[in-house]
Amino acid sequence: MRPVSFDLHFTRWAEGSVLCKFGHTHVLCNVTIDDELPRWLQGRIPPQGWLTAEYAMLPRSTHQRRTEGIFPGGRVQEISRLIGRSLRMALDLQQLGERQLIVDCTVLQADGGTRTAAITGGWVAVALALRPLIANGTVPGAVMRHQIAAVSVGLVDGQPVLDLDYDADSRAEVDLNVVMTATGELVELQGTGERAPFGRPALDELLDLARTGIDRLVALQRAALERVESGRVD
Amino acid sequence: MRPVSFDLHFTRWAEGSVLCKFGHTHVLCNVTIDDELPRWLQGRIPPQGWLTAEYAMLPRSTHQRRTEGIFPGGRVQEISRLIGRSLRMALDLQQLGERQLIVDCTVLQADGGTRTAAITGGWVAVALALRPLIANGTVPGAVMRHQIAAVSVGLVDGQPVLDLDYDADSRAEVDLNVVMTATGELVELQGTGERAPFGRPALDELLDLARTGIDRLVALQRAALERVESGRVD
Amino acid sequence: MRPVSFDLHFTRWAEGSVLCKFGHTHVLCNVTIDDELPRWLQGRIPPQGWLTAEYAMLPRSTHQRRTEGIFPGGRVQEISRLIGRSLRMALDLQQLGERQLIVDCTVLQADGGTRTAAITGGWVAVALALRPLIANGTVPGAVMRHQIAAVSVGLVDGQPVLDLDYDADSRAEVDLNVVMTATGELVELQGTGERAPFGRPALDELLDLARTGIDRLVALQRAALERVESGRVD
Amino acid sequence: MRPVSFDLHFTRWAEGSVLCKFGHTHVLCNVTIDDELPRWLQGRIPPQGWLTAEYAMLPRSTHQRRTEGIFPGGRVQEISRLIGRSLRMALDLQQLGERQLIVDCTVLQADGGTRTAAITGGWVAVALALRPLIANGTVPGAVMRHQIAAVSVGLVDGQPVLDLDYDADSRAEVDLNVVMTATGELVELQGTGERAPFGRPALDELLDLARTGIDRLVALQRAALERVESGRVD
Amino acid sequence: MRPVSFDLHFTRWAEGSVLCKFGHTHVLCNVTIDDELPRWLQGRIPPQGWLTAEYAMLPRSTHQRRTEGIFPGGRVQEISRLIGRSLRMALDLQQLGERQLIVDCTVLQADGGTRTAAITGGWVAVALALRPLIANGTVPGAVMRHQIAAVSVGLVDGQPVLDLDYDADSRAEVDLNVVMTATGELVELQGTGERAPFGRPALDELLDLARTGIDRLVALQRAALERVESGRVD
Amino acid sequence: MRPVSFDLHFTRWAEGSVLCKFGHTHVLCNVTIDDELPRWLQGRIPPQGWLTAEYAMLPRSTHQRRTEGIFPGGRVQEISRLIGRSLRMALDLQQLGERQLIVDCTVLQADGGTRTAAITGGWVAVALALRPLIANGTVPGAVMRHQIAAVSVGLVDGQPVLDLDYDADSRAEVDLNVVMTATGELVELQGTGERAPFGRPALDELLDLARTGIDRLVALQRAALERVESGRVD
Repeated sequence: MRPVSFDLHFTRWAEGSVLCKFGHTHVLCNVTIDDELPRWLQGRIPPQGWLTAEYAMLPRSTHQRRTEGIFPGGRVQEISRLIGRSLRMALDLQQLGERQLIVDCTVLQADGGTRTAAITGGWVAVALALRPLIANGTVPGAVMRHQIAAVSVGLVDGQPVLDLDYDADSRAEVDLNVVMTATGELVELQGTGERAPFGRPALDELLDLARTGIDRLVALQRAALERVESGRVD
Repeated sequence: MRPVSFDLHFTRWAEGSVLCKFGHTHVLCNVTIDDELPRWLQGRIPPQGWLTAEYAMLPRSTHQRRTEGIFPGGRVQEISRLIGRSLRMALDLQQLGERQLIVDCTVLQADGGTRTAAITGGWVAVALALRPLIANGTVPGAVMRHQIAAVSVGLVDGQPVLDLDYDADSRAEVDLNVVMTATGELVELQGTGERAPFGRPALDELLDLARTGIDRLVALQRAALERVESGRVD
Repeated sequence: MRPVSFDLHFTRWAEGSVLCKFGHTHVLCNVTIDDELPRWLQGRIPPQGWLTAEYAMLPRSTHQRRTEGIFPGGRVQEISRLIGRSLRMALDLQQLGERQLIVDCTVLQADGGTRTAAITGGWVAVALALRPLIANGTVPGAVMRHQIAAVSVGLVDGQPVLDLDYDADSRAEVDLNVVMTATGELVELQGTGERAPFGRPALDELLDLARTGIDRLVALQRAALERVESGRVD
Repeated sequence: MRPVSFDLHFTRWAEGSVLCKFGHTHVLCNVTIDDELPRWLQGRIPPQGWLTAEYAMLPRSTHQRRTEGIFPGGRVQEISRLIGRSLRMALDLQQLGERQLIVDCTVLQADGGTRTAAITGGWVAVALALRPLIANGTVPGAVMRHQIAAVSVGLVDGQPVLDLDYDADSRAEVDLNVVMTATGELVELQGTGERAPFGRPALDELLDLARTGIDRLVALQRAALERVESGRVD
Repeated sequence: MRPVSFDLHFTRWAEGSVLCKFGHTHVLCNVTIDDELPRWLQGRIPPQGWLTAEYAMLPRSTHQRRTEGIFPGGRVQEISRLIGRSLRMALDLQQLGERQLIVDCTVLQADGGTRTAAITGGWVAVALALRPLIANGTVPGAVMRHQIAAVSVGLVDGQPVLDLDYDADSRAEVDLNVVMTATGELVELQGTGERAPFGRPALDELLDLARTGIDRLVALQRAALERVESGRVD
Repeated sequence: MRPVSFDLHFTRWAEGSVLCKFGHTHVLCNVTIDDELPRWLQGRIPPQGWLTAEYAMLPRSTHQRRTEGIFPGGRVQEISRLIGRSLRMALDLQQLGERQLIVDCTVLQADGGTRTAAITGGWVAVALALRPLIANGTVPGAVMRHQIAAVSVGLVDGQPVLDLDYDADSRAEVDLNVVMTATGELVELQGTGERAPFGRPALDELLDLARTGIDRLVALQRAALERVESGRVD
């Protein structure tokens, strides 16, 4: 797995801001707490909060400059929705009350695994954003229901690989994005046979490998939050 | 599993046309063979064909009338791309030569599982469209590399369920879309914990169940193609 | 005139659903009854209902695959508005009360005359959708003010032709779309000299011919509705 | 019929420019001669020219300020296409050679009948634009195949009315737009029963009335072109 | 400076309508008085009015026909906002009360300086639109806070030039748009070194020249308004 | 003036990458060198290069989260064009040859003066991107024609202020953006009387103040480039 780091409070206006790096992949995760719910959720009984995510890439975050119009149709929204679903699982939306978290994940530099870095860093930014609300009692601590992280695994030249960079991803026969809780339960699973179908044994091997990655990410997330909490310089 | 049927030659202009029904879910799959490749594939050496898919729902295919703008952003393209990736796996694109298959999947009536019906029916429509080209030697028979089908499985009230209709899908705790070859190898796997994370044992159970469904779909696909081939009225 | 048929209850969620065929032209007409009026009609005194129509073609309903962007600008909306105006004439909008009918006309297969099939089939779908409301007294029977049908006529190689298919339409010197009531009064009249201007005698001859077509369509519409009413299988 | 006038050379860059007034309805018709054909016409044998029209209203050409988004969907393109079809009938497109006329019709002030003023004034602007090309032999004089004018007629309070202004148009039971040649042959006919269907006798009466209007418009068009030709101040 | 004229009441529905000509540049300025404020201004205490502007060019107002899509991105809105800011300075928005002025500036014919003609003519149209409201006491006369005019200046072949036409503008080394009050105070200043940077002395010289142009424009604006007021034919 | 810094090579794929900070305003400037010219410049004789800029703000770069749709129409393109014009002045486009520089300026954190930070940092990124091409002789060193920097000045509470942050900018009576060369010549000048018109003496005072800011920025730009050149860690 590539070196992973979390740069907390990277920008100053967002309620939670984390620059998450998986090797050369750098994703800025900014969390906004909005007191207005989307219209379709307003006035529910019991009241319930929401979380939504927006994923975007800077034009020159990639080797070749590209604008969003050049990506395959809907790719950006597909990833945005994956991030949103994954991070909603982290929360007890009723405990959140009538407020919405908006998680803006912007890829500053891409080298494979941008969606997994966005989910993993996004979870830290959500925790950061909610901390003062939990501290002052606005929101119960139980709002943080699950710790969530994500990693990609794949078969490259027939070998299982953890956390694929762009080069490995381009050559992979099988590509699997795994979102898990800290206890190793599955939240999202997206697997694609890129060049050939794959059997159940390969799936099992890749899921085992993903689990080892998730365990390390979960530990790094906790360490980053504790470092900030204890006032140590990041 | 709900009753499944394939209505071949449902419309007359498309090179391949199949109305695929999974219970009350009816998807019309029309295949166009286009001699022009997308620009980014033109002039490749060796030459290579392509397959792309477009998924759409009629406004009143659902209980409530809705227009595409009302669906979550990018859902339509996300499903289109899943269908396209799955059906490309069916083909040897180099054998296909410099031509493109466009698979238009239109949901006439929706009751859950529209994407799996689109893939399963789409494969039949692709086979139908290529048959005359294979028969007259334009394209080698080996172009049809894998037989592909898809089915959804899920946990509903804690029980594994095969081929979820709309009602089951709304209540499911876990939702898994599985695309497989006739030999049971995985092509695409998309799993979501809708209400709670899920463990590896649940995943295994669901994949076993999906396999039984795929086996039946694969047999039905073959029977439908043979019926047409033998000149029997469908 | 080509063989004409009406396939009632073709889909199950719409309040009224009719697959109308004029030869190889197949148009699916789905009627939705919506309790919400468009904003500009809300709160009128006396209250008044509305009917609007949306026309669309499936990408491969035509010989060549085409997407809407390829049609001349505004053609789709022009036809939608023609269908809407024609079917509003069928109704007494004040008797309809504060509700809106939305008529989705989707061309599954095109061979000329799609707009006239949409109007003629749309009228049957509207009648079907309103029947239970009339039966239970929600809406007075007088809401159905006029029976409406439509047909195209034209001069082809100097000869008047009724109900032009695609081939005839492409060669026509004059093209006339006629929407009439069951009593032969005009609702809409759209005539175009495609290759040359035309005189009043030609117009008169074409209108006489259109009338004979409308008479047959009107009888077929009634028969289709009675067949369903009497419980006979369609 | 309201006073009609043609203000030739109203702007200076267009090849033909006419401000056409029907009473308080003022439409500026600017003709551009473009040496490039639309792509689908390039390279035809024999070569053929084209004419296309664009209709637009200034935001405050109407009593209430409105932007195009407020008009019913596609109305602007529907009128543009009507103008284009009508004015193409004026020309022998093969004589025109490989060039395209673009007729921009902008409503500066609206009071009913904007599309008929656009067609009638547009014909004068086309004649003006082609005059130097005919004079210097670039295009044969026979390119002007038909003289074209347009007028609206309608039934208002049961009485036939010629050239409806906005007020009459709003109250009309029947509304008919008629495009004719100078010899009284029909080019386009668009009739709508606005409040009730109408019979053949009413149609005949309205067409007779339209003919008288066309006769006067045709004379005024000729006079305007001659006045300019003879150097008299307009 | 080119001949400048103001044609008042050029169209009849707008509350204020002026055709402003700077040589061959002709801009139609129509002012609408709307009793509804933009949402973000509603309910302010103390209440405050607003003015907004929309700039547009007719497709054939220029030598080459062009549609808005061809201009550099955002140019049209940039000019619209400049006109809006400049004309808001003319008004005391609190005296205006809860109403909005919408100034539609449409370029009928372009020959350089369209934005300065729009501002200069727009001010006359605003004065015209507010006159009856001031006369009947709806709005205090003090609402007209500043008289505003605009002119372009530039260095062409090293020489300072006032009111650049299209030809001069294309060759200018420095281009400066100046919006001033009648007393010579600056409202907006937009200067661009088109071919080379420019020094402070050049700026000073150009501003002096602009002042002489503003003085003349201001006198012409007043004369046009007085002519109308005194009932003299324009 | 706020503390200013340049973080060179902030991202790794862009040919030139600089994170430019003016106090809490942080703008990432990424330069792409593209061998393809925009179509309208291709095939010119003599050949000539081009530079274009794209300005964007991250959704939560501001105190309130906002998406681009919320900003006034065209603001983003207006700033993009200002940056592009300013940085083109830095270059001798003929010396650049047939290549295009694309400068993506993304605001990560906003606190006033984002456009001036984008121009000032953009110039450093352009210099960085061209350095290897100059070093290996692909492009002559004379391609860098002018050193360019930008700063805002304004009158706040009647006092001239250099480099306005968001708070000062909101209260300013006069706001002036100044782009200058290292020798103090003007490249762009955009002044707005926000609350009242302003006289020539105020303009002169503000321009003098801007000059002092430009002098400091120019020195900081040079120091940053030298630091990198000499291999010192930034």
